[in-house]
Amino acid sequence: MKRYEKFADEIAELIHTGVLAAGAKLPSVRHASRTYGVSPSTVFQAYYLLEDRGLIQARARSGYYVREQGPLPMPEPGPPSAQATEVGVSELVFSVLGSLKDPHTVPFGSAFPSPDLFPLPRLARSMAHALRHLSPHEVIADMTAGNADLRRQIALRYMVHGVMLPLEELVITNGALEALNLALQCVTQPGDLVAIESPTFYACLQVLERLQLKAVEIPVHPRTGIDLDQLAERLERMPIRACWFMSSLQNPLGASLDDDKKRALCQLLKRHQVPLIEDDVYAELYYGNQPPRPVKSFDDEGLVLHCSSFSKCLAPGYRVGWVAAGRYAERIAKLKLMTTLSPSVPAQAAIADYLQHGGYDRHLRRLRHALETQQGAMLASAARHFPAGTRVTQPTGGYFLWFEFPEQVDALVLFKLALAQGISLAPGPIFSASQGFGHCARLNHGHPWSAAHERAMDVLGRILHSF
Amino acid sequence: MKRYEKFADEIAELIHTGVLAAGAKLPSVRHASRTYGVSPSTVFQAYYLLEDRGLIQARARSGYYVREQGPLPMPEPGPPSAQATEVGVSELVFSVLGSLKDPHTVPFGSAFPSPDLFPLPRLARSMAHALRHLSPHEVIADMTAGNADLRRQIALRYMVHGVMLPLEELVITNGALEALNLALQCVTQPGDLVAIESPTFYACLQVLERLQLKAVEIPVHPRTGIDLDQLAERLERMPIRACWFMSSLQNPLGASLDDDKKRALCQLLKRHQVPLIEDDVYAELYYGNQPPRPVKSFDDEGLVLHCSSFSKCLAPGYRVGWVAAGRYAERIAKLKLMTTLSPSVPAQAAIADYLQHGGYDRHLRRLRHALETQQGAMLASAARHFPAGTRVTQPTGGYFLWFEFPEQVDALVLFKLALAQGISLAPGPIFSASQGFGHCARLNHGHPWSAAHERAMDVLGRILHSF
Repeated sequence: MKRYEKFADEIAELIHTGVLAAGAKLPSVRHASRTYGVSPSTVFQAYYLLEDRGLIQARARSGYYVREQGPLPMPEPGPPSAQATEVGVSELVFSVLGSLKDPHTVPFGSAFPSPDLFPLPRLARSMAHALRHLSPHEVIADMTAGNADLRRQIALRYMVHGVMLPLEELVITNGALEALNLALQCVTQPGDLVAIESPTFYACLQVLERLQLKAVEIPVHPRTGIDLDQLAERLERMPIRACWFMSSLQNPLGASLDDDKKRALCQLLKRHQVPLIEDDVYAELYYGNQPPRPVKSFDDEGLVLHCSSFSKCLAPGYRVGWVAAGRYAERIAKLKLMTTLSPSVPAQAAIADYLQHGGYDRHLRRLRHALETQQGAMLASAARHFPAGTRVTQPTGGYFLWFEFPEQVDALVLFKLALAQGISLAPGPIFSASQGFGHCARLNHGHPWSAAHERAMDVLGRILHSF
Repeated sequence: MKRYEKFADEIAELIHTGVLAAGAKLPSVRHASRTYGVSPSTVFQAYYLLEDRGLIQARARSGYYVREQGPLPMPEPGPPSAQATEVGVSELVFSVLGSLKDPHTVPFGSAFPSPDLFPLPRLARSMAHALRHLSPHEVIADMTAGNADLRRQIALRYMVHGVMLPLEELVITNGALEALNLALQCVTQPGDLVAIESPTFYACLQVLERLQLKAVEIPVHPRTGIDLDQLAERLERMPIRACWFMSSLQNPLGASLDDDKKRALCQLLKRHQVPLIEDDVYAELYYGNQPPRPVKSFDDEGLVLHCSSFSKCLAPGYRVGWVAAGRYAERIAKLKLMTTLSPSVPAQAAIADYLQHGGYDRHLRRLRHALETQQGAMLASAARHFPAGTRVTQPTGGYFLWFEFPEQVDALVLFKLALAQGISLAPGPIFSASQGFGHCARLNHGHPWSAAHERAMDVLGRILHSF
């Protein structure tokens, strides 16, 4: 990171934390140069960058000020849907995912943070170390049981979050996606009803479609998460066989249930003896000091199948995830043996070594800081470029913002027009079994903010104004 | 390899190729020592090893002779089954697979060759090299498309075998097992009929069971492979939606179709427009000079989904396989994106690097030689220890022998008694949808032959005699 970028980040932090309030005047270039012991050109470049990010603005003959423009308002939760829905959204999702292959596209539609944010060289060292110490016998044996060190390290992290996890409950998988697939397959039969969130992660819709399951959509409040009253009512009225929820930093809204609601959700599951597939892949990406607790930590009946992975916070492409599967662990292990046998043994061993020796928590702190800073940059940029009437979430973690545009905006048209200008985004309808959220979109801020991103927001703003 | 082991292998080769015929006298220790320029103790140790492997026998005050005992006869092909069968063999398979976890068991029941036969340290170097050169962007991009170098290297190997493979046909998977799962899922609906071999690879039965498909079993001749007349008759008479066959070095029999039969099979598929899932994971393990051609090489309609992997011939535990999926490639790629997203990117990159720089063909020649030698050792040992009336296959590749014991032998009882003595084996019924082959078993000779193996064959022989 260049000196001026570092300096800009420090100022940005002061703005985000409110030390420099909206409307406050920034020190002059000469004054800042003297005070902070940096060259005037460093200050100038930093201010220019901050202006580019929309955090400050120049006033003629007066200097730089923190921008007055307030944040965009939060979106409202969507309306409930009355009945179960057949899912048929896969083709739309594939056409969106296909748009992400071009490396020159501004990746606001991506599902991953920038790979530059991950300690890939350090992981490569862990890989080399692990392969030197892996016996030939383990290369075969780890395929069925999973790497023993990795299982222990994962169980240790659960302990820190208040979950005492017996190792037998843990099934290592090809990323969280395989964990979620196996979990749902394990607890349902074709034709069954499954309660999901609305909006929800599109892969959830694809899995339901593939397994011929019907979706019962439960609305998610942008800040407080899933509507438990509605869930309770549906569980009474309909033969729901499983729930699939993200209780912390939900994708795409970023909402988290508080601990009371997580406890209440557990009670509901228990009363109806319905398993919960808890997709918790963003839990490590919280911004505050307090990691969110999983619903799993309130479960004393083995009803929660807690799925996660290292793909979003450490090692994309290694494809190592897991499910802590409660009472379903043995069946899931067997399903895995029948379908993919095992995740890559070297990848498991490398991550196990990294967790022991690589400085995972230090990396996570840096990553969370970067994502939070980038969130601020995107929010500020959106406030500057997007039309009045736009609403946006402000999650306390992760790297997604969910935008609700004015009613007349068609997100699928927006998607196509943006793509033609080299900008990807995830249009609202791919997050809905009933093709709702037609004027919404999810934007990824997982990449270091740059002039290209700022320009892309400007272009999006112009397209939005044209509707 | 020690000097005496090398010398023993040379003698064994002379015996296997018939240069030293049954009953021939071996040169005396002193004579051999002088002729071959090795120490008398090397000769003595080599002869002792060959005696232990059952290839030669000592006659009191006379010296060593090539054993007179002829090979066991070949088994007969099984009877045809008249109708489609619901499959329910999974639990039995799991109890057998579970028995393999103990590293102290003599692994005759294993599905893998000894991991000591693989160039794991060389692969680790390829991994280190690949990770140094993999860009962060590729770590993300390779998840959807697969590693570009690996795809090219695989396509090159197809070219050598006479198949011009467009890269778009190739989907990289988590081992062949995922390829087979996706392939079958892609071309069938629950309740459909699928033609499979009898006996067949047990994972095939598990996949059918999981997808609620019905098996139409076609008998396999131990030497010439699947009975095409019966297949033709079934295709006429029944609404078979897919075939799943191993056309070369079939598991468990080791049979291969000749090129004429492969061509005829292709014609049959074409006439009925039925896709073939061709499981070809043992093709690289042929013993002669001529690699077997895949049925895929005769297919001009894109009806063959050719599945293979590096797990049996290079890198167990890396979990890198593929399917060359013909006209089904796009659907399979999508199914993969929905279920596991991608195999491990580092594992793909490591294997790509090894294929370019590691000396794959040299390794394969050594591996084939080791497996052929070990086959000879197991055949000789079986001839010495197993009861009269035992029949056995003599495949021209791979690392499995299929034994047909006298009628009164119950393979499941044999399995349990052997396991109690620390010996695993794969009992016949796990290879059959209709629980046939009750007096058969598959034995793995993929591990360097040792005194412990010889003792285990002795123990198995005693159990067999007790029936």
